[in-house]
Amino acid sequence: MNKIFPSSEYALLKRLEPLLNYKKSKRYPLGMGDDAAIRTCKAGEQLVFTADSFVETVHFSTKYMNFREIGFKAMAINLSDCAAMGTRPDGALVQIIFPVHINGKTVSQSILNIYKGLNEACKTWNFPVIGGNLSKGPCWIIDITCAGSADINSRLLRRKGVKSGDSLWITGFPGSSAAGLIAIGKYGSIEKIPHKYMNLVKSHIKPTPRIEAGIILARNQAVHAMIDISDGIAKECRTLAFENKTGIILEPHEDCFLPDMRELSGETGKDYMDWFLYGGEDYELLFAASRTFNPACLPQGISVKKIGIFTNRVKKVFFRNKNGKMVKVEKSGWDHLEPCRPG
Amino acid sequence: MNKIFPSSEYALLKRLEPLLNYKKSKRYPLGMGDDAAIRTCKAGEQLVFTADSFVETVHFSTKYMNFREIGFKAMAINLSDCAAMGTRPDGALVQIIFPVHINGKTVSQSILNIYKGLNEACKTWNFPVIGGNLSKGPCWIIDITCAGSADINSRLLRRKGVKSGDSLWITGFPGSSAAGLIAIGKYGSIEKIPHKYMNLVKSHIKPTPRIEAGIILARNQAVHAMIDISDGIAKECRTLAFENKTGIILEPHEDCFLPDMRELSGETGKDYMDWFLYGGEDYELLFAASRTFNPACLPQGISVKKIGIFTNRVKKVFFRNKNGKMVKVEKSGWDHLEPCRPG
Repeated sequence: MNKIFPSSEYALLKRLEPLLNYKKSKRYPLGMGDDAAIRTCKAGEQLVFTADSFVETVHFSTKYMNFREIGFKAMAINLSDCAAMGTRPDGALVQIIFPVHINGKTVSQSILNIYKGLNEACKTWNFPVIGGNLSKGPCWIIDITCAGSADINSRLLRRKGVKSGDSLWITGFPGSSAAGLIAIGKYGSIEKIPHKYMNLVKSHIKPTPRIEAGIILARNQAVHAMIDISDGIAKECRTLAFENKTGIILEPHEDCFLPDMRELSGETGKDYMDWFLYGGEDYELLFAASRTFNPACLPQGISVKKIGIFTNRVKKVFFRNKNGKMVKVEKSGWDHLEPCRPG
Repeated sequence: MNKIFPSSEYALLKRLEPLLNYKKSKRYPLGMGDDAAIRTCKAGEQLVFTADSFVETVHFSTKYMNFREIGFKAMAINLSDCAAMGTRPDGALVQIIFPVHINGKTVSQSILNIYKGLNEACKTWNFPVIGGNLSKGPCWIIDITCAGSADINSRLLRRKGVKSGDSLWITGFPGSSAAGLIAIGKYGSIEKIPHKYMNLVKSHIKPTPRIEAGIILARNQAVHAMIDISDGIAKECRTLAFENKTGIILEPHEDCFLPDMRELSGETGKDYMDWFLYGGEDYELLFAASRTFNPACLPQGISVKKIGIFTNRVKKVFFRNKNGKMVKVEKSGWDHLEPCRPG
C-alpha cells in the first residue's frame, strides 16, 4: 500500500541491494533489510572475524582513486586478513561515513559506486555483504568487518608458531604498492603515468588479497605461521619476531624486486629497498616454513620466495645489504600512533 | 628475548588487553592478538551480526561526554540492535578512528578510556571484544560490529511479522534522550543541570540497551515484530508500516511521558511530543503484539506501554493529538542523507 520509502537512506539501501551478492539462503535465512544478519552455523565450523578501516587522506585519496576502486580496496584489505589465517571469506559488514559537506545526490552516487567495488570483491571470492551502516561525518571512511570460515578440522595459521630453523617467505612482490604510489605522485595523474609502471600502480590501487594462497599454505604442515603485509615487511617482521621470541635476518634475493620497480627507483632516486621494507599496503603474505617446505609443490599461480631466516643468533630484525653488511631494521613502517608515514 | 613491543600501537593494544573481557576459551580458542578472532560454532547455533557508527559532532561531543561514556554508548547502540532481534551479545569488533591533530599520548589515554566504557558494557552483558582496528583520521569515530547469538530453536524477531489487529508497544520512555540533550544545551554543562533533570541527561549519555526485554519479548508468541528506537519513533514507525504494508495510528497515553520531561518542555517552550516522536537515540524497543499480549506476564523490571495500533484504515503513520485530531506524521527523525537533524 505504502510505496514511498521511509527515508532516503532506506531508498539508497534498496538501490544497493542488487549489488550485495546477498541472497536468502540456508546459511543466511533472513535476507537483507533488518537490524542484523543471521548466520546459521553448521556443526563444528570455525568462523574468524576481522576489521579494517579505510580513511580518506590517511589510506586513500579521491584524487587518484575512483569510488569503485575505493570500495574494492577497502574490502581487499579485510580479505587479506582472512587470507592470513587461511580462511575463505564468508560475509562482511560495511560501515560507510560520508562527508557532511557533499550534497545528498553526490553522496548516494558515490556510495553506490563504492558498493560496485565491494560487489566486485564479493563476486570474485563468492561471499555476501551481510549488513552495515551509513553515517555522515568529516570525510570518507569505510570500515569493514569480515567473517572468514573454515571447517573445524582445517588448520588455521597464526602469527605464533615459528619453529627453530624456519625460513621466512613471501608471496608476490612487496614494495610494488609503495612504488605505485610514488609513480602516482611523480606523474600527477594516472593518465600521465608511463605504461611500464602501470603494474606498480595497479598493486597500489587494486591489490589482490591472497585468499587461495592462504588456504593452500595453511594446509601445508611445513608452514608454521603467517601474517599479511599491510604495514610493511619491517613492521610485520618485528611482529613475527616479537610474537615468536626470535630474531630474523632478511636476505631477499634480487628476484624479489620487479624490474619496473628498480627502474622507477633509478628514475626517482629513491631506494627500492625502502619500498620493500617499509612501504606496506601490499597485502601479500609473509610466512614461516620449515626447511622441508617445497615451493615447487604449490599449485600453479602461487609464487613464493624465500627472503630470510628466523634465528636466535640475532635479537630483533636485521637486513643483510648488498655489501653483505648486517643492518638493524629500525622501527618504521606504518604505525598509526607515530607522527607520520615514511616514503 | 625481544621485550620491546613492535609498535606503539601494539603496546597500546597490550594495555587494552585486560579491559577486553576476552579470555581464551572453547568458544574463542585463539585468545587475542592475531589478525582475526576465531569463533567455534556449536551445532545449530544462530549468530546475528550488527554494525553501528558513533561519530564525533554527529552523534556525540567531547564537550559533554567523557571518553568512558563515549565508549559505553558506542557499544550500547550496537547492543540495542542485538536486543531488537531478541539475541544475547556474543562478541564485538571495535574500530576506532582518532583525530590526527591530537598528540599520541593523549590519543592513547583517550582510547584507553573508551575501552573502559566498552569494558563496562562487556561486563554488564557478559561478552568480549574479539577484535578491531585503530586508525588516525579527521575526528573521533567508533565503529562497532557486534555478533549476537541464540539457540537454533529460539525465535528471533524481525521488523516484518505484524499481523492484522496488532497493537504497537514501547519499552521505557522514548523522548527522554532528546530531552536530556536539550537540558545539556540549555544549561551549558552537566554540572549546571538541576538534579531533577539528571535522569533525562542519563538517558542521553548512558542509554540502557534492552537486552533482557528483547530476549523475553522474542520468546512471547504474541509479539510479532520488533525494532529499536535509534532514529525516533516517527521514523521507526514509518519503517514498520512500510515493511508490513500497513498503517499506524499513534495514541500514546499521558503515562508515556516522564513528569520531568513535561517540566523541561514547559521550561523551554519546546513540545515534548516532538522529543517523543522525532528525538531518537532512546534505544528502547518498539514492537507489535496481538491483542492477546498481556504485559502483566512480563518479569518484574520490564515495563512496556501500548502507544498505538496497526490498521489498514489509514495509509502511512498518523498521530492522534490531545484534541483527538489525526495528524499525519511527516517524514522526519534522524536521517543521515537529509540535510540536518531536528530539535
